[in-house]
Amino acid sequence: MTRLTLAIDAMGGDFGPCVTVPAAMQALASDSHLHLLLVGDPDKITSLLATADSALRARLQIIPAESVIASDAKPSQAIRASRGSSMRIALEQVKAGRADACISAGNTGVLMGLAKILLQPLEGIKRPALMTVLPNQLKGKTVVLDLGANVESDSAMLVQFAIMGAVMAEEILEIANPRVALLNIGQEETKGLTAIREAAAALRDSAEVNYIGYLEGDDLLTGKTDVLVCDGFIGNVTLKTMEGVVRMFLSLLKSQGEGKKKAWWLRLLGRWIQKRLAKNFGHLNPDQYNGACLLGLCGTVIKSHGAANQRAFTVAIKQAEQAVRRQVPERIAARLQAVLPKSD
Amino acid sequence: MTRLTLAIDAMGGDFGPCVTVPAAMQALASDSHLHLLLVGDPDKITSLLATADSALRARLQIIPAESVIASDAKPSQAIRASRGSSMRIALEQVKAGRADACISAGNTGVLMGLAKILLQPLEGIKRPALMTVLPNQLKGKTVVLDLGANVESDSAMLVQFAIMGAVMAEEILEIANPRVALLNIGQEETKGLTAIREAAAALRDSAEVNYIGYLEGDDLLTGKTDVLVCDGFIGNVTLKTMEGVVRMFLSLLKSQGEGKKKAWWLRLLGRWIQKRLAKNFGHLNPDQYNGACLLGLCGTVIKSHGAANQRAFTVAIKQAEQAVRRQVPERIAARLQAVLPKSD
Repeated sequence: MTRLTLAIDAMGGDFGPCVTVPAAMQALASDSHLHLLLVGDPDKITSLLATADSALRARLQIIPAESVIASDAKPSQAIRASRGSSMRIALEQVKAGRADACISAGNTGVLMGLAKILLQPLEGIKRPALMTVLPNQLKGKTVVLDLGANVESDSAMLVQFAIMGAVMAEEILEIANPRVALLNIGQEETKGLTAIREAAAALRDSAEVNYIGYLEGDDLLTGKTDVLVCDGFIGNVTLKTMEGVVRMFLSLLKSQGEGKKKAWWLRLLGRWIQKRLAKNFGHLNPDQYNGACLLGLCGTVIKSHGAANQRAFTVAIKQAEQAVRRQVPERIAARLQAVLPKSD
Repeated sequence: MTRLTLAIDAMGGDFGPCVTVPAAMQALASDSHLHLLLVGDPDKITSLLATADSALRARLQIIPAESVIASDAKPSQAIRASRGSSMRIALEQVKAGRADACISAGNTGVLMGLAKILLQPLEGIKRPALMTVLPNQLKGKTVVLDLGANVESDSAMLVQFAIMGAVMAEEILEIANPRVALLNIGQEETKGLTAIREAAAALRDSAEVNYIGYLEGDDLLTGKTDVLVCDGFIGNVTLKTMEGVVRMFLSLLKSQGEGKKKAWWLRLLGRWIQKRLAKNFGHLNPDQYNGACLLGLCGTVIKSHGAANQRAFTVAIKQAEQAVRRQVPERIAARLQAVLPKSD
């Protein structure tokens, strides 16, 4: 493997450097070819590196940034005032070729807007989309997009999302001729919103996409499709609903019988059961697949959950490594050249 | 309690009379004031009643219907050709005053359309909405609407849904001054679709609704609000996503360790664990709250899941009983009179 450099917006997310710095050290420890640029307040970052292993520390560089973009900032205003912010400087590292990819847990709208301005969309792409790979019930994986990069999507955007999703499934998950479905409120052709029905008509005629029809919300994890396409609003609500339910279940499992006075053997038994359940359900834990990839850009940008903990942010860094090593933007660009009209 | 008569579309849903007839008998057994009109193919219904208790049978009347509306039928066409169908005849029983409410597991779009035509919307209501009551993590309940009666909703419709939902929470769940939230993709005011932002502005100014702001998909079950309002497309996708994840968890729990050869005491232990888990998670099983209420009509109509089993369909019948006994349409009408402009 060759050397790989990633730029991290160390200040983004609900916890800033408290999460990003330890996650960075963990990522460095697990990959000796990895180099990281931590962008943010040098004092805050340095204080968290006091006890860091010096060998790892040698592969880490701090890049100062004066400001942080607030997670509740309005994108248009925040983008105008973004100069000097940790998010923008991290993206600029990619633009200047000093980093291969950027990771941020900051404001989604601002990250999307700045990435579009600094890194440019691929030729023929109207709007980039946020994509994630979810585990499914059949022990396989499902590519889901858009997860909220765009609030509204017309049929042309949905078709582009379908193509980008199919490339991801084929090139990254190594699924031959991946199945592509549109998320809708019924399986019949007549159901749903106009943009979805128009996209379905275009995809049915497409030789490039193995379109299998509509799926509903309860098929998100069933593995009936390899790629599930929806607009950003629906994608965001669906993913968050799923995460909410999964987290509730995991916390209910964890709290089974807590607070009751029990015999020692029941307590031991309880712990054993929890361990087994954690083993069998752990792959569904949202922390395990944190990091949505902003597809359709001339560069790799990974958006982490704002509320990510250290483990989850480390997963987002790994996603960036993988996307760079698998040359995601290059592969999507090559495929798009063959499929899409040259101009918008 | 007084006598109550409900009309059941016995042919609707994926399983038709095989589910609706045994569910009807179960409902009759649990409420001695209940009378049922089973609308459908008399032969099919009668053959399923061969072993029925005669005392229960005395409170059940079969009303013949020649046809069934297909679950994949296009609403506009199916409504035109609906005369003589089990769904239409069941609704006509309510219109004619022979039944207090109607329950169907058939085609949602057709049920919505026919109910609007036959029973009429309440004065001032643009479009009825499908509503359900979900259990939440705080052992409370959350009213959620619209779940798919309307594919698209403007801000005026969302405001009406909010009012109807608040009446439901106050009058039926007995929650004083219920909190009302809009489902969105972020909590900041600037987030989301135009219709949602406009509805938020109207609700903030409303003296009638205790509006608390936006919530996201992962708050569906957290109990942070008493009423969650969204358009029908989003509501349908969210509810189905939630149900899909819950069913997956319940089936994973059930299959824990299956197929492995185990010592007798491990098998016994496994069964004991399953029982405990079933007890602790059972209230989240979608079967337990089957039956969405079509709010905003001059009459009570309950839509059951098409895939409902006997237990779930019995729950839908219970929902109808409760809605009639609590006088849901009358209470909503009274509240709307005070709040809404008199004409559309």
